[in-house]
This record gives sequence, C-alpha cells and structure tokens, in this order.
Amino acid sequence: MAGRKQIFVGRFISAPGPNDLLIQEGAVLVSSTDGHGIIEKTSWTAQNSKDALTEFGLSEKDVEVVEAHQNGFFFPGFIDTHIHAPQYPNVGIFGKSTLLDWLTTYTFPLEASIGDTGPAAETTSTTTTTTTNGAPSSPTNPQQPASKKRKLTPLPRAYKVYTKVVDRTLRNGTTTASYFATLSVPATNLLASIAHTRGQRAYIGRVCMDHPETCPDFYRDETPDQTIQHAIESIEYIQRLDPRGELLAPIVTPRFAPSCQAETLTRLGELALTRSLRVQTHISENKGEVELVSQLFPDRKNYTDVYDHAGLLTHRTILAHAIHLSNDEITTIAQRKSKISHCPASNSALGSGFCPVRKLLDAGLDVSLGTDVSGGYSVSILDSVRQTCLVSRQLGYVNGGEKRWNIGVTEGLWLATVGGARCVGMEDRLGGFEVGMLWDVQEVVLDEVDGDEDGDGKGQVDIFGWENWEERVDKWVWNGDDRNVRRVWVGGRLVHERG
Amino acid sequence: MAGRKQIFVGRFISAPGPNDLLIQEGAVLVSSTDGHGIIEKTSWTAQNSKDALTEFGLSEKDVEVVEAHQNGFFFPGFIDTHIHAPQYPNVGIFGKSTLLDWLTTYTFPLEASIGDTGPAAETTSTTTTTTTNGAPSSPTNPQQPASKKRKLTPLPRAYKVYTKVVDRTLRNGTTTASYFATLSVPATNLLASIAHTRGQRAYIGRVCMDHPETCPDFYRDETPDQTIQHAIESIEYIQRLDPRGELLAPIVTPRFAPSCQAETLTRLGELALTRSLRVQTHISENKGEVELVSQLFPDRKNYTDVYDHAGLLTHRTILAHAIHLSNDEITTIAQRKSKISHCPASNSALGSGFCPVRKLLDAGLDVSLGTDVSGGYSVSILDSVRQTCLVSRQLGYVNGGEKRWNIGVTEGLWLATVGGARCVGMEDRLGGFEVGMLWDVQEVVLDEVDGDEDGDGKGQVDIFGWENWEERVDKWVWNGDDRNVRRVWVGGRLVHERG
Repeated sequence: MAGRKQIFVGRFISAPGPNDLLIQEGAVLVSSTDGHGIIEKTSWTAQNSKDALTEFGLSEKDVEVVEAHQNGFFFPGFIDTHIHAPQYPNVGIFGKSTLLDWLTTYTFPLEASIGDTGPAAETTSTTTTTTTNGAPSSPTNPQQPASKKRKLTPLPRAYKVYTKVVDRTLRNGTTTASYFATLSVPATNLLASIAHTRGQRAYIGRVCMDHPETCPDFYRDETPDQTIQHAIESIEYIQRLDPRGELLAPIVTPRFAPSCQAETLTRLGELALTRSLRVQTHISENKGEVELVSQLFPDRKNYTDVYDHAGLLTHRTILAHAIHLSNDEITTIAQRKSKISHCPASNSALGSGFCPVRKLLDAGLDVSLGTDVSGGYSVSILDSVRQTCLVSRQLGYVNGGEKRWNIGVTEGLWLATVGGARCVGMEDRLGGFEVGMLWDVQEVVLDEVDGDEDGDGKGQVDIFGWENWEERVDKWVWNGDDRNVRRVWVGGRLVHERG
Repeated sequence: MAGRKQIFVGRFISAPGPNDLLIQEGAVLVSSTDGHGIIEKTSWTAQNSKDALTEFGLSEKDVEVVEAHQNGFFFPGFIDTHIHAPQYPNVGIFGKSTLLDWLTTYTFPLEASIGDTGPAAETTSTTTTTTTNGAPSSPTNPQQPASKKRKLTPLPRAYKVYTKVVDRTLRNGTTTASYFATLSVPATNLLASIAHTRGQRAYIGRVCMDHPETCPDFYRDETPDQTIQHAIESIEYIQRLDPRGELLAPIVTPRFAPSCQAETLTRLGELALTRSLRVQTHISENKGEVELVSQLFPDRKNYTDVYDHAGLLTHRTILAHAIHLSNDEITTIAQRKSKISHCPASNSALGSGFCPVRKLLDAGLDVSLGTDVSGGYSVSILDSVRQTCLVSRQLGYVNGGEKRWNIGVTEGLWLATVGGARCVGMEDRLGGFEVGMLWDVQEVVLDEVDGDEDGDGKGQVDIFGWENWEERVDKWVWNGDDRNVRRVWVGGRLVHERG
C-alpha cells in the first residue's frame, strides 16, 4: 500500500466542538504509507471528483476515487473507550443484578471460560494450526464462508467470541476500541491478532486481578509476580505485532482497585511508567463498590487516591464510569490529566447512578464514551450517544429541571469522536477531517422514504425529504443502526462494507 | 376467508404474568371467520405438524400449516397504547426542548401540515382518485412498487406519513395501536383507511383542541360545537369502515386538559358515554403542564379531577404518562378503572421525569406501554420495553437503591402485551395463546452466530448456542429490532413478512 492515494468526495459531517456540527461538501485527499492513511489535503470548494482531481493536481490514474452516497455522508469513526470483549456473549443478560453480584453471577464465569482450550461448543474441524501464543498462525478472513473459515484454534471459544465482537463493533462504525480482555494471556493475544488482522485500531488489555478476598479462586492470578509476568507477556506480544503501536497497542489493565492487591497496583503503575503505556481501569461506578474500596484500602483518602498512590493516574489513563466522585477526586483527576469513559447504557442497566458529565467537563476533564459491553447491552457507540442524551435529561430532571446538564446530539457525537480521540491521546490524529488526521471514517447513509418502498434492509431512519442535514443527523442518532453504516475505513483501509 | 383454518407449529413464548415467562412447544389451531382468526384449540404435546393434525383431527388439505423458524418463536403482538401518527416524521427531532415548548416548536406545525391539500413534496402522478372523505376510494397496497403505487390523494403528506407509520409499526411487531391523529377530519379518516387496509388493529382518534389561550390560531377548532361536530364526523366514518369495531374503532381524543375548553371536555365525556367509546388523552407528563392545568382549571382539585369532572375517566380511558400524580389522583384513577400508558422513551427524551410504574401497579392500575412517537424517538415497543427496564433501574437508584422498583424483561414484555390488552379492554382476546384469543402474533427469529457468518440482514442479536431460551429472550429485548420480526399476523391475517 506504499504511496497509495485516495480521494473521498461528497458530504463530510463532524462535531469538532460540543455545540458545533460541521457540515461540509468537498473532497479529501488521503495518502497511505504502510497502511497509515492520512489526510494530506482538503478542498471545501470541489463539487465533484473532477474538481477534486484538478484542485489536488492529480489525474485519475494516480488515485482511487470514493464518492459518498448522495443520501449519506462521511463521519469520523467512533471511539469506544471502554469495552469488555469477552463479555460480548452476555449482552442483555444481567437480570436484576447490580455491579458486584453481576460480576460474580454472570461475568467471571464467562470470562474464565474464554481461555478454555480443547473441545468446546464448536463445529468440527480438520485443520490444526497453532502458534506458541495461541494466535492463529496466519491472518484469517472472518468474511470467508463458514466452511472455509473453521480452523481448530486451541482457543475455540475465544476465537468465536473475539471474531464476532470485532466484526460487530466495526460494522457499527467503531474504528478504535479500548478492550478489556481476560486473565488468559493466549486468549488476550488472540484478540490482539484478530483486531489487527481485521484492521481495527485497538488497545488490548490483559486483565489483572489477584486479590484473594475479592476474586474467585477459579479466576485470579496467584501472586503479584504472576500478575506482572503475565501482563508483560501480553504487552510484548502485542508490541511485536505492531512495533509502531499506532494501530495496535497494549494497555495496562488492572480490573479495578478492589480486585488487585496494593503491591500489584503499584507495580502496574511502574510498568506503565517505565514502558510509556496507556492504562485503563474502572472507578467509582457503584456506591457499594466505593464502600468496598474504602474498606480494602483504609490508608487511602478515597478511591481516586488508591490509583494515584500507585502511580496509575497519568495522562494516558482511561477511567471508566466516574459516577460517584467527590469534588476532591475530580480535582485530582484533572491535575493528573487522566481521562473518563462515560458508559451510560451500562450505568442505567445496572442501576449504578447518573454520571455528572457536565460537571466533569466543567472541571476540565476529557470525557469520551464507552459501551461497557456487557454491563452495557449494546456494542454500538451510536446507542451510547443516545443514552448519553437521555441520561443527561434525566440528570437535569433530578436536579430540579436545570438545563445545564443537557447533552444534545452534537455534544454526544463530539464525545464519541473528539472526546474519544483526546482520551486515547490521539486528538491530533482522530476525530475530524483536518489535514494530518488519520482516515478513520464511517460512511453513513440515510434513505429517503420515496426510494425505500419495501423498507427492508435499509434501517429504521426515514427521511421524508424536507429535513435539513442537521435534522437528518438527529434522526440518525436516534434511530440509526449498523444498517446505516455503508463503509468503514481505518487508516485509509476499507475494513467493513455493508453486504 | 370464511371458515379458513391455520395450524401454527413450533415454540410459543409469552408473558402471562409479570414474573412468568411461559415457554411452550406445540401447536395452535386458528379458525378464521370474516378475517377474525381466533385460537380454537391448542396442543402442548404435538411435536410437529403431523402430530398437530392428528391431535386436532384434521387433514392437510383442510388447513394451512405455518411452522416457526427453528431459531425462533411465536410471541404475542405488541400493543402500543400511545402513538401520535402524524408526528412520525419528527422522530428524533426535539433538540433540547421540554414538553410545552416542544409542542409549539416542533409538533403543532407538523401536525397542522398533515391536513394540507394540493401540491406537496410528492412525486408526480397521473391518476386522480378522491372520495368525499379524503380517503383513497379503494384499498391500496403499500407493498406495491413505487411506480404502481402513486395515486394523487388530496392529502399527499398524510398519505405518505400514515402509510409509513403503519408499515413501520407493523414490521416492529405492533399488532394493535392507539393512534392520535390530528385536527383534520379527512386526514384522520385516511389514517383509519390505511390501518384498516393494512390490517393493523387500530384505534383512531381525531384530536380535539380548542382552547384559544393555549392552542395556536393556525391549529385549533374554533368552538366547542365545531370540536364535537368534527369528532363525530370522524367517529362515524370509522364505524362505517368496521361496523363491528373489533379491528378498527374510533377513540375520543381530547389532546390534553390544557388544550380544551371545559365545556368541550364535558361534551366529549358525554359523547364517549352515550356511544360507548374508548377515550385517550395525556395526564401529568410534566411539572410545568401540571401547574398550567391548576391555573386553567382553578375550580378542580387536581389534574385528574379535571377529567373526572368531565366524565372522561372511564374503564375505557387510556391516560398517557401519569408521572406526577398525587396519591389521591392514583386512587381516583383506580376507582374509575382508567388505564395508564407508560412512555419511558419520551419521558427520558423530554426530561419529563420518571413514571413510578411499580407504585401504579401496586395501586391496582392497569399499565401498558406506549412509544409516544415523536416525544418518543422510536416506533418500537420492544425499545419501550428496554426503556421501561432502564428507567425502573434509575428510579430504584433515585429511591436509595430499592429493588422493588425494578422491572425486568419478563415484566416489561407483560406490560407490552397483557398490559396493553387490559388497557384496551381486550384482555380476553389479546396478549397470549389461550383458546378464544385472537391470533395477533409476531414470529421472532434470533440467529445463531454459526449460521450467520456475514452478519448482514439478520439483526444485532448474536446467539452463541449455549444460551437457554430465557436468556435468548433477554438478548432479543436488549438488542432486537425489526430484523428479528419475520412475520406478523393480526386476527390470523398475515400483515407483514420480512423481505
């Protein structure tokens, strides 16, 4: 792909600011080297591909021209800053539980099973292909028919689940995802291989948990030494897959404070510092959890201080949930420039509370969106935008009808793109259509009622023809789904095309 | 269709009680007379169609046999007890408004335009077909290709919008809908014709509003006399279309207390009483609205008393929202046996508050679900089930973590079916698979990951194969959409089949 050039022509919509929905028509020139397609030039005067070629000084034979559908637009890919890949099979299965009993009843058993080797609930296979890391020895194409695809991996369940979750997130427009995996190093490495092969931008975290009082015996590291050793094994595997670390990178992942011994937290902080790694974990999701942390770490001022003391609060750290933080904690997080992943679907589904997003933003924190599969029931960041808006209205209601809590569609989309880019430290590279940014983009198509008489297969968004483009974006956010995502690119590479 | 018999074979799932998810395999015999297909016999021992024929003492030539998909099940059709058909083009368009300004800014202008005659944003047409009532003179088939379908109705916008909303609700499994139309009698009658032609069970309400202080000049009746006269015109048209009133029926529809003069409310109450008609309206959706009612009706004790005084609180009355009722009001509504339509998506989207469903149920009220399009952004009652569960968890959180507020998937589905049946006075006829009930049913299909390698067109529910059927139903509720609805019947008639 060295030297490849593409011109994208049509309507470009993005949310560069919380109240700024930018709707442009024109063309963008993307140049790719080694699979990293970057916006080299833009033209907001070009009316068609011919204009674009002229403006960019190129001829047809030099470039691939990609035109957006006339009823569609290019939009920055979504960034999911908090998703548990192994929990995907449990989406929608949580009964009436809240966080701590949900972990025990639904989550830990499933996560533990992901590392299962040997016969599983898989179909038969004739080919054996293994590597020492448990990853497939060659890239596999998940789009192949079933009969050609089945290889006997030593991790059949991980292969099936991780292939599906990467596919589902891509087809919902998620170009970057920060994944929690499981304790299993081979299965975590397999997730990294699958995401890398499919071309999704991904941060992969081998989950660390070793506190004997809070973790089940069947699903924890035995000692801090073992935790660190396994973390390093996975980090080094991932870094070998993508030495540059732009498309694929490891992320240090203590599950959350209650699941780790104090020594482990400190050593993971050192690991992140010495190797300049991202960190992800949970914070202050549930009142019971906050109370548990205060019991487990009596010497620390609060939940935030547990991470701060361990050196885990850095500008590369993503903290999921952040619902019940005190003002002191918010100040500390702002000082450390750590990032927040807001997961509204999960918070509502588990009855965890209402994350005060406006308050966090006002305090200067960077906030992004996470699906939190499977505390959250949906892999779709578009659904997270929707839930963010709904929860903000409810928070306004709870606060006596104050409108300041309101997060509208544009601000929600801004959190899902620019907010995500800031939270993964890629604000100069992701989230918009500026020169120098990576072409991580989804093409969204909204069909007009007049051209969609049968209604099948084209999604649930109905455009009657009199709506302006701002209203069409509203309609997309509230009723859109994967059917409206026609194509998805990561770094200029086409990684999904709707069949 | 006189004497037609059908046997439905496969898995039957229903929610006969709030904590009772009934999963049965077997067969059901449906006998239809004049388009009213009723369950004549059931067999929960038949393993296949051959067994069923034997058990029912029939031979193949006597019946049509319909088998559920092996990965699917029959489920009672959804009942949407509160939906504004003319507002459908505005789904997702509400900005940051709350109820009263949303009505003025978004809703009234759109509703007023539905009755527009003459040229509209429609394609050209060559055929002119009119009737005195503004309804198409012959049944039209919305499934026909566009080129054959276009007839020049005198109400092009109403035709386009109402055709689409009936189609969208049917394909999402809504077999019964209680529609608010607009002030326009011809457009309201057109909605009745379209629903009747497509075969959806529908209650159609010509909206009454005539209070000069609260209604815009461009969109209100001029006098109580005119309001009543227009209401009667539409009622009589609808009763001519379906004299039996089981598939299609009029419903007396004062918009809400603030929009009607006191005399109008009283005369509408008399109209409903003398003609034994259903009534639908809104109650206590928003705190500002409650305050407005107290100002407009200073002689009445509370919002509920306004309707009660007018004779509008009957056992045939559906009250939408019911968020901010006092205990006295709940008692009065219980005494009158009036029904509640809970509209969680709308309540969250407009920041109206949290409807205390558990409290209403505990007080003995019948509660059902409404999409409240377009205060609600989705035509899907399945989405309403989801939002009901989410809002109940949030209400539990707001009430200090009390679990009693929790509404789980089964109870949500019960509200969407049995609850709906009770609220439209059809509890013996709708909502389950008992002998004597109408065959208003959707067939739901959930694909297994192994058979769905391309992922396209089969929805977002992924079944990994190890889930039991209760868990599959959970997954359907949380990630299902119209793609999972393979077929829909109303009164035994196939009214939708997925392409």
